[in-house]
This record gives sequence, structure tokens and C-alpha cells, in this order.
Amino acid sequence: MTAFPQALTAAIALKGPTVVGIDPRPEQLPGSLREGLQGLTGRAYREAAAGAVSTWGQGVIEAVRGEACAVKIQAAFFEQFGAPGWEALEAVCSAARQAGVLVIVDAKRGDIGSTAEAYAHALLDVDGPLQADAVTLSPYLGRESLSPFLARCQSQGKGLFVLLRTSNPGSDELQVETGAAERIGGWIEEWNTSLVGEGYGPVGAVVGATLQAEELSHWRSRLPHTPFLVPGYGAQGASASDCRPCFDGRGMGALVCSSRGVTYPTSEAGEEEAYDADFVAFIRQNALRFREEIARSLA
Amino acid sequence: MTAFPQALTAAIALKGPTVVGIDPRPEQLPGSLREGLQGLTGRAYREAAAGAVSTWGQGVIEAVRGEACAVKIQAAFFEQFGAPGWEALEAVCSAARQAGVLVIVDAKRGDIGSTAEAYAHALLDVDGPLQADAVTLSPYLGRESLSPFLARCQSQGKGLFVLLRTSNPGSDELQVETGAAERIGGWIEEWNTSLVGEGYGPVGAVVGATLQAEELSHWRSRLPHTPFLVPGYGAQGASASDCRPCFDGRGMGALVCSSRGVTYPTSEAGEEEAYDADFVAFIRQNALRFREEIARSLA
Repeated sequence: MTAFPQALTAAIALKGPTVVGIDPRPEQLPGSLREGLQGLTGRAYREAAAGAVSTWGQGVIEAVRGEACAVKIQAAFFEQFGAPGWEALEAVCSAARQAGVLVIVDAKRGDIGSTAEAYAHALLDVDGPLQADAVTLSPYLGRESLSPFLARCQSQGKGLFVLLRTSNPGSDELQVETGAAERIGGWIEEWNTSLVGEGYGPVGAVVGATLQAEELSHWRSRLPHTPFLVPGYGAQGASASDCRPCFDGRGMGALVCSSRGVTYPTSEAGEEEAYDADFVAFIRQNALRFREEIARSLA
Repeated sequence: MTAFPQALTAAIALKGPTVVGIDPRPEQLPGSLREGLQGLTGRAYREAAAGAVSTWGQGVIEAVRGEACAVKIQAAFFEQFGAPGWEALEAVCSAARQAGVLVIVDAKRGDIGSTAEAYAHALLDVDGPLQADAVTLSPYLGRESLSPFLARCQSQGKGLFVLLRTSNPGSDELQVETGAAERIGGWIEEWNTSLVGEGYGPVGAVVGATLQAEELSHWRSRLPHTPFLVPGYGAQGASASDCRPCFDGRGMGALVCSSRGVTYPTSEAGEEEAYDADFVAFIRQNALRFREEIARSLA
């Protein structure tokens, strides 16, 4: 068993620290996949849309397998199609496994006791439906609500990314003003240092790329054993240099994630056409550019 | 359109403020539903288990339709079976709708922007897969993360229950010591007072039944427009009198939830046999007893 921290280090060495987010939006699928959805409603629509999303998601995996160390798959965008959506989610996770791309399921689950156990099974277990390598979690129910997930780090080499500091409007009130993020950071560091002597442990933190550089530096030095998952690059506003403080002095310790900016065309001339003509080639090119931008900022 | 607060008031007038939790555990299904699962693994197991769970969940709806104002359906226990589990979840939600029982999907979701929109569609929208009447949410991402759900309260008459104070070990650290629960309580009251002039609004709070009576009384007086969803009754340790402080002086303002204590047999003599012989009748009897216990404590 290769545990998540080691698998991640190996993947970063090979492909750099970029993560491509898979957020399927039916209205942004390529024309060929979108056209079958016209006029459908209800369950018929959800089935057709989920089928198109499954094809698209597997195409994204094919496009980024050589350029990204991991994919971050957003559960909500599959769940909106109900059971057929979960069918597509299982198919995309399975395709990523087969392509040798690490899978982070962005589910932000958080519950207690046997319910948390059921989520951990659903998302992570090697005999479960998704078998992700890592998962995002929400900490509001407290330290012990994360126990079933921590147990999977130890027994199955899985990884976690706990919501710590996000950069959406209003996030400060609960995360910073109350000191909640400092406490959660403390738990995570404690877990990592008990699980690994040195280097990065399996319990990561979600830290928004568009926070102030000063705050990012604070978290980087405060949590020396904690890998960061850093959303917000590109379409969401952060540049490669904005992300720099999330990395340590050796250019390690952070995964930068871009979703829309890699997987969808912008309104710039020719992008829509290139995407419609061959979305896999289009996304591969974007993923390569993303990888190079981040590599340059770390050089 | 009957909005959730009105529908709830009507259901409580008819059947009292008890909610039965649907937490399907394969190992606790009646023998007849369990026996088909023997020896199966992987996807074959998940399909068979989800089918059994769907049958059982629909049986619970049939059993409690006359005795409970709502059911609380735990998403995790369906999700553990992947896509077939979501198929079962859709079927159980649909059965509840048809039986005229209000459906609270206990999903504890929490995300931002278009991702939160996708969850709101998945869980609540009248043209979505689950079409729940209300949903539980996790607030760690901040006030505006709940906006897409609030919008459904206004446009579709839906209800929410935001995690406020849970009674699991360690919940105090993040919820009380930081003052986070006080802030969240403030948001909820503000939303309710802006949405309804008086009485209870559509934005409820999850408040654990096994908290100290003093704390429960505090929340009841602090949040006069906020209905409480109160888990923890019965198998989880709280008595009817423990729940009393969650209600206002007129015996309104709280929904008491019991899951295991109503839907599964205890180790007491004869219970297992009665459950195996006719689980619908068995659960109906428990739901009636639960309803009477709560009614007595409010008399």
C-alpha cells in the first residue's frame, strides 16, 4: 500500500503540484454532448445529462493524466442528477484510478458516529463505491467527528483535506473572528505529527488562494506538516504568484487547483470552437499551461 | 404552495412534533430482507443492499405516516451503497411525498456559490431528484454559503435546519468556546424575522437533545422564531423531559427525532421476533409510543 502522502509526493515529482477540478455543468459541455439534452426534463433529463457528464469527465481524466498530480471531483455537480449522477461519479472516479491519477472527492461531508462511518465508506473505502484517494471534510461537528476518516488514513493510507480557511465573502466571521480556524489548524497539525515524524502527513487543509499573502504565510508556517489544497486559481481570481506563499521554501506543501479555468473555454476568440472541436485536446493544452504557470512561479 | 412552516404546523397539529429517523443499516434489516445479501460483495452487494433498504425505508414510511409529522432521512446511509443507494433514496423520498409525510433530508451539506446551488437543486428543487421539504446544512463556510438554500425558502417554500449545537463529545470546543454557535444563531434569527413577521420561520436549527437543560432553555429564548430539530431521543440517551426545554410555553418550536429507538428492535425479549414477523407493524407501534411519550411530556 502506498499511502496518500507518498503517492502525492511521487505524483508531484512527475507532474508538478497542479490539480484539475472536475465540476461538470451541463450548459458548458461541448456542443456534441449538449445536444442530446434539448427538450428533456425530470428523470429523463437527469439520465441523459449524467451520461454526457460521465463522458466529459472521463475525457477530462484522459486530458490531464499527464499534466496534473490529481483531480478534484466536485460531488455536488454529479449529485444534482440524483442516482444517474452518482453512476457518473463512480465511472469518473474509476477512470481516474485506471489512469493513475490521484482522486480527491470534494464532498465537504461532516457528521458523527455511525453516520460519519457511512460517509467514510462511501467516499474512501477500497471496497466502497468511489474509492477516492482523499476527500474534503467540514469540521463544524468537532474533532471527533473526523475520527472515522482519520482511521482510513491509518488503515488504508487515505488522505483528508479539512476546511480551514476559505476566501469566499463572509468566511472570516466564523473562521477567523471566532478563532475557529486556529483551533482546527491545531487539531490537524497534532494528527499529522502523531501520524508522521517529519514531512507532510495525510491530513491536509483547504486554504483559499485569494486570501491575503500575509495570512497564507501564517498558515504555511503554523502548519508545517499539513499539505494545503488551494482552490481559487485562474477563473476564481488568484494568480500563480498569489499562490506562492502556500508553498514551503522547497516548493512543496501545496496543491493548486483550477477547475473552470482549465476545463471550459473563455469568451476569447476561437476558444469555444477549439473546445467544441476536441475538448480533450483543448483541456490538455490548458492543463499544460496551468502546470507551466505554477512551475515558473516556483522556479 | 404551502410553505414549510405552515405545513409543519398543520402536521404537528395532527400528529404531534415527533420525527422518525430513517437510518438504514443492512445488518439491522428484518431477516427476510437481510437474507438475500449473504455472500455478496462489491457492486452486487451494493445493489442488493440498496434494494432491501428501499423496501425497508418505504415500509417505515407506511408505518409512521399516521404517527409522525415528518421523517428525517439520513443521506449517508444511502450513499454508502453508491448509485443504487441514491436510487433507493429517491424512492423513499418519493414514497414519503405520496404518503403526505414531510421529508427532511439529513445531508449536512455546506459549500459555496455554484456548488451550493447544485446541492440545493439536488436536495430541494421541485424538479430535482429528491424534492425534500427541508434539509440539514453545515455552516462553516459562512453566512453567504447558505444563500442558495435561503432562496429556496422564499421561492419554493422550503425549510432548512442549520447545524447549531450538537451534543457529541468535543462539539463544545468549536461551537461554544469560540462563540460560533452564538453567531450562527444570530444569522438564523435575522433570516427568520426578515422572512416572517411573527411565529416560526423556515430556517431551523439542529440542537442536540442531550445538552444541559440550561443551555437548551438559553437557545429556546435566544431564537424565538427558529424551529429546532432535536436529535438524540431514546437510543441516543435523551428522555421526553430532557427535550422539554426545546419547546416554547405553548409546546411548539421543536421537532424531536428518534431513529434507532423507533425503527429497530432492542435486545429485550420478543422484540427481534416481532420485528422479523412484521417490521411495519412493529415500527408503527414504536412510533405511536414515541408520539405518546412526547405528548405526555408536553401536556
